Amino acid sequence: MHAWQFTNTHEPLVMNDVPEPTAAPGGVVIEVKAAGLCHSDVGLLEDEGWLALLAKRPITIGHEVAGVVAEVGEGVTDWKVGDRVGVCPTTDAGAPGYAFDGGFAPKMAVDRIALVRIPENVSFAYGAAGTDAGMTSHHAVIATGGVKAGTKLGVIGFGGLGQIGARVAVLAGAEVYVAEVNESVWDNVRAAGVKGVAKSIRDFADVGLDVIVDFAGFGVTTADAIETVRPGGRVVQVGMGRLEATINTRDLITKAVTLAGSVGGTKDDVQGVYDYFATGELNPAITEISFDEIPDGIQRLADGKVVGRLVATSGF
Amino acid sequence: MHAWQFTNTHEPLVMNDVPEPTAAPGGVVIEVKAAGLCHSDVGLLEDEGWLALLAKRPITIGHEVAGVVAEVGEGVTDWKVGDRVGVCPTTDAGAPGYAFDGGFAPKMAVDRIALVRIPENVSFAYGAAGTDAGMTSHHAVIATGGVKAGTKLGVIGFGGLGQIGARVAVLAGAEVYVAEVNESVWDNVRAAGVKGVAKSIRDFADVGLDVIVDFAGFGVTTADAIETVRPGGRVVQVGMGRLEATINTRDLITKAVTLAGSVGGTKDDVQGVYDYFATGELNPAITEISFDEIPDGIQRLADGKVVGRLVATSGF
Repeated sequence: MHAWQFTNTHEPLVMNDVPEPTAAPGGVVIEVKAAGLCHSDVGLLEDEGWLALLAKRPITIGHEVAGVVAEVGEGVTDWKVGDRVGVCPTTDAGAPGYAFDGGFAPKMAVDRIALVRIPENVSFAYGAAGTDAGMTSHHAVIATGGVKAGTKLGVIGFGGLGQIGARVAVLAGAEVYVAEVNESVWDNVRAAGVKGVAKSIRDFADVGLDVIVDFAGFGVTTADAIETVRPGGRVVQVGMGRLEATINTRDLITKAVTLAGSVGGTKDDVQGVYDYFATGELNPAITEISFDEIPDGIQRLADGKVVGRLVATSGF
Repeated sequence: MHAWQFTNTHEPLVMNDVPEPTAAPGGVVIEVKAAGLCHSDVGLLEDEGWLALLAKRPITIGHEVAGVVAEVGEGVTDWKVGDRVGVCPTTDAGAPGYAFDGGFAPKMAVDRIALVRIPENVSFAYGAAGTDAGMTSHHAVIATGGVKAGTKLGVIGFGGLGQIGARVAVLAGAEVYVAEVNESVWDNVRAAGVKGVAKSIRDFADVGLDVIVDFAGFGVTTADAIETVRPGGRVVQVGMGRLEATINTRDLITKAVTLAGSVGGTKDDVQGVYDYFATGELNPAITEISFDEIPDGIQRLADGKVVGRLVATSGF
C-alpha cells in the first residue's frame, strides 16, 4: 500500500510503498477513513526538536485517525471487524505517527487500548478531528477547568480549539463569555450561543468569572485572566502563542487563584466530544481534502490559510 | 481597661482607656494571654491602603490572639468560662483588629464561630502564633499543596512561615527539600528533619518533586518552581517578596503544572497546627515581649530585627 512517510526535517514527505500492516495480539488494523492534519505536522517538518519523539524513520505520519476495524488480533474480544473507531493519541499505546506508523495511509495497526467508538451518526471527519483538537479542547474546559452547568466561563481566543471549547461549555450548560481580538469572527462567536463577546477578557471583570480558559496564550492574556477571574477562581492555560507570561502574583495569592496548564487529554475527552457531535449541536468547521493533497495541506497550514480543521477523507 | 489603638497611618499607636467589652449573644469575651505581632501591623502603620479594611477608628489592633474565655454570651453552650482558645482571623466573624477591636488589650469580645480550642500542653504564645503564621503555613502545605505522607515536597524560603511549613510537612510524613539562600540558617534547616538543603530549588530537579511551596516569592522563585516540579505537579505561591513573576508557560502547559495562590486558611488549619504543637514536635522560634513593648516590637519588625514570631505574653 502507499503511505506518506517522513524521512527528515526540512525534507518533503515521501509517498512510499509499504507492506500492509497485520494485527498484533491485543491490537487491530484500521481501514483509515479520515486523517486530520495538525500544526504539529508543520512543526515536525520544520523543527529538528521533534525528531527525538519518533520511534523510527522513515515513519508514516498522521496522528488524528478515524476508520473502520478491518482485522482484530489475538485476544481482542471487545472490537470486531466493521466497528467505527477513532484513535486516542495519548494512551499507553503511544501516538500514531510518532510511536508507530500513523494514519496517512490506507491502513494502520494500533493497540486496542487506544480505540474509542464513533457514534453511528458522527462522520469519520469529525471522528478524526475529535481525537486531538476535540480532545484537547474538551480536556481543558471540562477536565482541567471543571466547567459544568452554571459555571461562568471566560474563553480567550476563538480559533480552532477555542471554538470547540466554547461550544462544548455552552452545551454543558455554562454561561460563556468570549474574548477574541479578531472582530471578523464575532458573528460566529455569537452563533455559538455565548452570553458576550469582547476584545479583552478584562471587559468581563464585573461578571465574576469562575473559570477562564486561555486558548491564545500571548502572555498578557494569562496575566489578564488571573486579574479578571473571581477570587478562588481557576485559569486554564492551553495556548502557547508565546512561551512566557509575566503575571501579578499578588492577585494570584490574595485572590487564591489557581493557574493550571492543560495539555492533551484522555479517551474520556474523545468520548465526550463524540457524544456532543452525536447530538448535532457541536459543529466545528472542517475542510476536507484527499489523500494526495496531504503534503499541500500541511503547507497551507504552515501558511495560515486553513479555515477550521483540515482532514483528509478520500483517496486512501 | 487600657488598649493599644490605631488612629491613622503614620501616627504612633495610642494607649487609650476603653470600656471593658461584654459578650454579645453568640459571642464570648476572652481574657487575652498572648497576642502576636505581624508584618501586616507594620503595613497598617505605614500604608494608607489598609485604612479601607478597618471597621472603625480608633480601633484596638492585634489579630493573633489567644487567651481564656472570661464570659459567655446568650446562646453559647459549647464554650465555658476558663476554656483556653485561639481566635481564627478568617471566619465570618471577621478579623480581630480590623472588623472589631482586637487583642492588644486585656480583654477582647469575639463571636464563638472564630474559636479554636488550644490543647492543654500548648502555650498561649504558640496558641497565638498558630492562628495566623501557623494557619497560613499549614494551609499552603496541607490544604492548597495537598501534601501527605510520601509526598516529595520542595520548600522555598526558610523564614517565619517557611520554617513552620517545612516542619509541618516533615511531621506529615513528606520527604522535604528546602531551598534557602541564607546559608547561615542551613543548620536549622537540617535540624527540621529535611532530606536536603540547597540555595536554589533547581538543585533538586532530579528529585521529581510532587509539590513546591514558594514562601519567598521573588518572581524567579516561582519560575524556578514551575520548571523544577515534576510533570503534573503543583506549585503553591504564598510569599510576596515581589508582586510579579515571569513564568515559562510552555513548561506549565506541556508538563500540565498547576500554580495555586494560597492565602490565609481556616479553623481546620489552626487546629492542625495546634495538634502538631501538642505533640511537642513543632517548635518554631518565638520571641516573647510584654504588653508595654508592643509599639517597639512593631518597629523591630519594620527594621527586620526579629528572630522567629514576636508575641506579647505578659503585662496585659
